[in-house]
Amino acid sequence: MDSVWFDGDAVGYVDQRALPRSVVRARASSVDEIVEAIATLAVRGAPAIGIFGAYGVALVAQRLRADRPAYEAAAARIRAARPTAVNLAWAVDRILAVPGDELGEAQRIHDEQREVDRRIGEASVALFPASGNVLTHCNTGPIATGGDGTALGCFVAAHRAGKALHVFVDETRPLLQGARLTMFELREAGVPCTLIVDSAAAITMRRRDVRAVVVGADRIARNGDTANKIGTYGVAIIAAHLGIPFYVAAPRSTFDFALESGDEIPIEERNPDEVRIAPDDPVYNPAFDVTPARLVTGFITEYGVIAPPYADSIPDLETRPKLFLAPAP
Amino acid sequence: MDSVWFDGDAVGYVDQRALPRSVVRARASSVDEIVEAIATLAVRGAPAIGIFGAYGVALVAQRLRADRPAYEAAAARIRAARPTAVNLAWAVDRILAVPGDELGEAQRIHDEQREVDRRIGEASVALFPASGNVLTHCNTGPIATGGDGTALGCFVAAHRAGKALHVFVDETRPLLQGARLTMFELREAGVPCTLIVDSAAAITMRRRDVRAVVVGADRIARNGDTANKIGTYGVAIIAAHLGIPFYVAAPRSTFDFALESGDEIPIEERNPDEVRIAPDDPVYNPAFDVTPARLVTGFITEYGVIAPPYADSIPDLETRPKLFLAPAP
Repeated sequence: MDSVWFDGDAVGYVDQRALPRSVVRARASSVDEIVEAIATLAVRGAPAIGIFGAYGVALVAQRLRADRPAYEAAAARIRAARPTAVNLAWAVDRILAVPGDELGEAQRIHDEQREVDRRIGEASVALFPASGNVLTHCNTGPIATGGDGTALGCFVAAHRAGKALHVFVDETRPLLQGARLTMFELREAGVPCTLIVDSAAAITMRRRDVRAVVVGADRIARNGDTANKIGTYGVAIIAAHLGIPFYVAAPRSTFDFALESGDEIPIEERNPDEVRIAPDDPVYNPAFDVTPARLVTGFITEYGVIAPPYADSIPDLETRPKLFLAPAP
Repeated sequence: MDSVWFDGDAVGYVDQRALPRSVVRARASSVDEIVEAIATLAVRGAPAIGIFGAYGVALVAQRLRADRPAYEAAAARIRAARPTAVNLAWAVDRILAVPGDELGEAQRIHDEQREVDRRIGEASVALFPASGNVLTHCNTGPIATGGDGTALGCFVAAHRAGKALHVFVDETRPLLQGARLTMFELREAGVPCTLIVDSAAAITMRRRDVRAVVVGADRIARNGDTANKIGTYGVAIIAAHLGIPFYVAAPRSTFDFALESGDEIPIEERNPDEVRIAPDDPVYNPAFDVTPARLVTGFITEYGVIAPPYADSIPDLETRPKLFLAPAP
């Protein structure tokens, strides 16, 4: 199931808010609709947002060919639809850099993501035992990436390679991406899985012999500090406490090599009504948290597993030759 | 607001499932209704369950004065309505031990709880800074205890003593006792508070300079291992990781001196439908977890703060003279 696609005079997407109850296909045909689909999490998952934003800017380019300032202003609005995920800005900038080939470039971004996900899954298989329990937080599957998924793609790749993994899935409050999307995608892929509330992660990891935790990422700083869905940081602390390996599965495009550390990553705060019951209760509702690099056992990327010391291995990742099509000249 | 009371021919209670939207007062006038009110969490909170169960057994005693075996069978059903909280069994056993004075004993249990809560709050005040953030999980207020509350009573006592505390409240999935009850009670008491999702506890503790965590307990083993609402264990690990004091506020009646360690505490698993969205998703839904004693900075009791080493201080607690009325002879 493709989560985003180009549709001639619009960008198509699966409205993730309606899952798992129904698969609603929708179209965004204006800048307002593109921005709204991203801001309301109808389209979510850092790579999927990037692909969606790329198709969106390509759509605008078709219409505003003659008016570069208006085109750039529209692209800037799409680029700013969510502040934390680096993929969106990265994808929009790639489109802006290839005047005349915007749609081709957006399709290359999508194709590359499929290949990246495949390689991430491949790189992860050796990290898992032949059988056992693993745990994940939030959603990092095909719906979120446009490919096989990052963390979820690792479980699917291990399953296809014959490993008998069973995945504990954090429900991921407040928007329940784990309960709504990850359970749906793992069951579609035939991977055994069990849903838990987020706060059951500690007792589950301790009493159910969890062998590894794998999560995705929204943005990774040069030192390895990792912004991801709220709750990731707590899971990482618990994994470290219990001696369980904690992996972040993410493509190179999620690394922001210009950021020295996680202290520089802006943390988006979302609507209090996502959380509160009484209408005037004060709420603190950060959408992301930042996991310090020292809690991360390794980063599973399309270049293989990036291990500590990150002061060496992440700058090294930046210098590797690009695996894929460079942007057109 | 009293959460449970004796009502002549029934036991009255505030149905906690309807809070904070409305305050529904209900009556349980049969053993079935008493057991159902406990099992469905209409009455919850270990001390409140104990008082409710005591009044319930006293009600049955009035009716079955002439039939001791039937009376004892009914009391056994009430005693077993929930498996984890020790207060219920403890309170039922106290009533069974005083034939002819059942109602008097139930009222003494209630009065003692009010005094116990007052002393717990008093013992806690010196642990808090003059101002700053604190954090709690689940609900431990007047509704849960029949007195001022345990952990929540500590915040209220510090507030009354002039300390400018601000409380971060975990919403406490799956049943949202934090969002529904703790926010309601803290605001009623005039204590500044902010609601967060459970998984935001780690980033909140790190970035908002949380100075102490205080939680309640459902059952404490002789070595200090503490069973409490699911999620407590994760919060304790995070607090230890960040060097934040982690206190358990609980009366002596919550200590089960016969249990050597937390490994012997049965963990109740509740209905999967509390968690899942898709109707056939597998779910692991433990209602409690067990926090190892080494993560607990101290126990705030009506006898003062019980500090490590618990191998000495908890057995010592058992030998202290009882503060309150002994059961009638």
